Amino acid sequence: MVEAPEQLEPTLVGQVMRLIQTRIDRRQYTPGARIPSVRAMADSMGVSKSTVVEAYGRLVAEGIVQPRLGSGFYVAAPLAPLNLAELSPDTDPTVDPLWVMRQSLRPGEESLRPGCGWLPDSWMPHEMMRKALRSAARDGSGPTLFEYGPALGADSLRGLITRRLLEQGVDAVPDQVMITDSCTQAIDLVCRFLLEPGETVLVDDPCYFNFKALLRAHRANVVGVPFTSNGPDLSVFAALLEAHRPRIYITNSGLQNPTGASLTAPVAHRLLKLSEPHGLVIVEDDIFGDFEEQPSPRLAAFDGLDRVVRVSSFSKTLSASVRCGYIACRSDWIRGLADLRMVTGMASSPLNAELVESMLVDGSYRRHVERIRTRLAQQRQIVKTKLARLGIVPWTEPGGGMFLWCELPDGADAADVARRALAENVILAPGNAFSVSGAATGFVRFNVTQMEGDKVYAALRRALS
Amino acid sequence: MVEAPEQLEPTLVGQVMRLIQTRIDRRQYTPGARIPSVRAMADSMGVSKSTVVEAYGRLVAEGIVQPRLGSGFYVAAPLAPLNLAELSPDTDPTVDPLWVMRQSLRPGEESLRPGCGWLPDSWMPHEMMRKALRSAARDGSGPTLFEYGPALGADSLRGLITRRLLEQGVDAVPDQVMITDSCTQAIDLVCRFLLEPGETVLVDDPCYFNFKALLRAHRANVVGVPFTSNGPDLSVFAALLEAHRPRIYITNSGLQNPTGASLTAPVAHRLLKLSEPHGLVIVEDDIFGDFEEQPSPRLAAFDGLDRVVRVSSFSKTLSASVRCGYIACRSDWIRGLADLRMVTGMASSPLNAELVESMLVDGSYRRHVERIRTRLAQQRQIVKTKLARLGIVPWTEPGGGMFLWCELPDGADAADVARRALAENVILAPGNAFSVSGAATGFVRFNVTQMEGDKVYAALRRALS
Repeated sequence: MVEAPEQLEPTLVGQVMRLIQTRIDRRQYTPGARIPSVRAMADSMGVSKSTVVEAYGRLVAEGIVQPRLGSGFYVAAPLAPLNLAELSPDTDPTVDPLWVMRQSLRPGEESLRPGCGWLPDSWMPHEMMRKALRSAARDGSGPTLFEYGPALGADSLRGLITRRLLEQGVDAVPDQVMITDSCTQAIDLVCRFLLEPGETVLVDDPCYFNFKALLRAHRANVVGVPFTSNGPDLSVFAALLEAHRPRIYITNSGLQNPTGASLTAPVAHRLLKLSEPHGLVIVEDDIFGDFEEQPSPRLAAFDGLDRVVRVSSFSKTLSASVRCGYIACRSDWIRGLADLRMVTGMASSPLNAELVESMLVDGSYRRHVERIRTRLAQQRQIVKTKLARLGIVPWTEPGGGMFLWCELPDGADAADVARRALAENVILAPGNAFSVSGAATGFVRFNVTQMEGDKVYAALRRALS
Repeated sequence: MVEAPEQLEPTLVGQVMRLIQTRIDRRQYTPGARIPSVRAMADSMGVSKSTVVEAYGRLVAEGIVQPRLGSGFYVAAPLAPLNLAELSPDTDPTVDPLWVMRQSLRPGEESLRPGCGWLPDSWMPHEMMRKALRSAARDGSGPTLFEYGPALGADSLRGLITRRLLEQGVDAVPDQVMITDSCTQAIDLVCRFLLEPGETVLVDDPCYFNFKALLRAHRANVVGVPFTSNGPDLSVFAALLEAHRPRIYITNSGLQNPTGASLTAPVAHRLLKLSEPHGLVIVEDDIFGDFEEQPSPRLAAFDGLDRVVRVSSFSKTLSASVRCGYIACRSDWIRGLADLRMVTGMASSPLNAELVESMLVDGSYRRHVERIRTRLAQQRQIVKTKLARLGIVPWTEPGGGMFLWCELPDGADAADVARRALAENVILAPGNAFSVSGAATGFVRFNVTQMEGDKVYAALRRALS
């Protein structure tokens, strides 16, 4: 890291040095890349060429850049290790997606987590899981218990997922399906497969905060499209397609995270029509889809698996501990994705596939999900009523799921409220963790299943006062 | 993909177009990058400027590159999806690491797999595993069965791994250990954390073929250092450090894959001493370490976890289906690695951690591994004797493990032999799949545990004749 000549009030030389160092830290300049010429840098910063010469000279002395005779200055290798936090434009840690994720995953019985994105384990299918484990212990084959398994994942689970896709109107054959360890891994693989650093990705604003963090790891240019209660704002979407020529759009069609809104059929149709001439790839993350009370349109059903890539997992409905998700996409992409998956992590666990499959095959999964849906509807009502007493109001009425995306009263700043709540061991998810534009200052995403009792509301009341 | 004007004998214009397209396919030129100027390209290919102007014009018409007024031609976005096979310099599919991996993972009872890198499931600890599954079914807690678990992985398994490291002389505390899904994922995360495209990575020549394939996905410049029966050739190693300034060296210290050779203490010392002034990071993959009969030196024990990163997993000893590995490294790198792991795949499975831990805690793991070691020693002798009858001789006498790295008789080409054997459903691992330089044409890696009966030898005899 560069020590600027004066720490408190950097000189002009120090400012030039810091600018270069920041761009290197953010991977805008990578090893071997040429940094701007002395003249270009002097012009762009409005300083003299001798100031830039002095700054570049010191960067050379520190080993940060290297001169090459007659051709300028180049970034020296190696860089410091990748620091996702430093790549962040979010200066407030409370709205940094990484911070929210770290807090949510931190173990500790004493914390309440209305900010997390999963059901309490008391809601999960204990008997189904214990039965599946007993069955694996008794009947699991040698290959299931001990081997790597095929590159695309267990054939029988791929067949089962294909049948579920067909039920949802998504035309698919098993050779279009690859098992992954999670929905997040599925998205990560698709990004590794399709994206180059610097390419643009559209996300909803607001969107699941990890889309932002994951895309930061891919050094993508992330652009947000405002999300309405019917799907993305299409006029903005059209303008962004023209202006940025994005490679990928990542979205949830049913029960969007965090808003709980679902796409309507006309919006789905027009969105696909707008995207087509641009060759936009749409990654449809359906992880919360099974919690929807009435199925809403899916882009993968409208388009087929042509430009839409379906990703999902069983983390929300069956278990986040039995890591198992999938990618369904064009058949000519599967082999490339499987190669990537193989070289970066071998194959998915045959045991996990068998555990998931044995929970999916009989009618118990359907009954389990129906029970959850009923319970979620009740819980959303209860939480809505209790939040209303604090002046906290949902932005829309979700058609299912565990989230209420709510506006705080009196222009309260959700990041402030989250900090105060954290001091009482209540972990909130403040709006701007989800927003690319930072337009969700007054919003909070509440997980209605993590708000039993009065403690969360009492903490909210104090944090809001 | 560019259609060159003439398919059979490309014109000069077609040759220029193909060169640009190939460099784009290999990600040497990425979106937004400037391709060489007309004059530079004309000079380097020895063609006229008007030829290059014509070629660039056609690439513009195809949407492959874009002109920018007064500043040359730039690669247009988007690129075709990443094709790891196309990134390969290996034109012979039989020695392409991807091909060997795909063949090995392909299910099919009828194939024999002396080319694969794992024990048959009949060697694996069935009773321990079934007991662990029954115990999880009976006593597994809600968080273990259903939740994501902490970002670094289960605390108790991290503690247990730390104690195992201390037993091996590696000073570590639990906060230096992160659980991963596999050893491969561990290496992938370290590469994502430390490497930029184009940076150089040293590997042993020969080395585990997936190092080559994984590094291709990272677009690293892979350089091989000849591996001797005592470790890497130190004079070449020193010269490569000077010439390439590599960022990382990936190696196995004990029971190197594929040779089965182990590092000696003097080589370990000198290797670390040579590396130090270059700030080289050494990734020590210890996945086969527990199969060693007499522990050989480990770089992580000599150096501490300063510049050495230890990665390993339980895939070879306990189960490749219960995905569970780890990274142990400098404590100031753990948070950055955990952030990367979280945004690209959330946390590791608490259930897998519990299954692995319950197999590790009592004395049964030690007894299991001792039994395997004895059986491996017997099997190595049997296979060595049988191979000797075919004139196939081990390059060195391994101090344990499942591999014999052997030279074929009479200058036979291992890729040819592998192709012929495949026609009889025998999957071999030919030498050049492991070699960066292609210097292992006459070598094959045999897995002695996958060569029961006579079929493999009969197929080899026919393939060699």
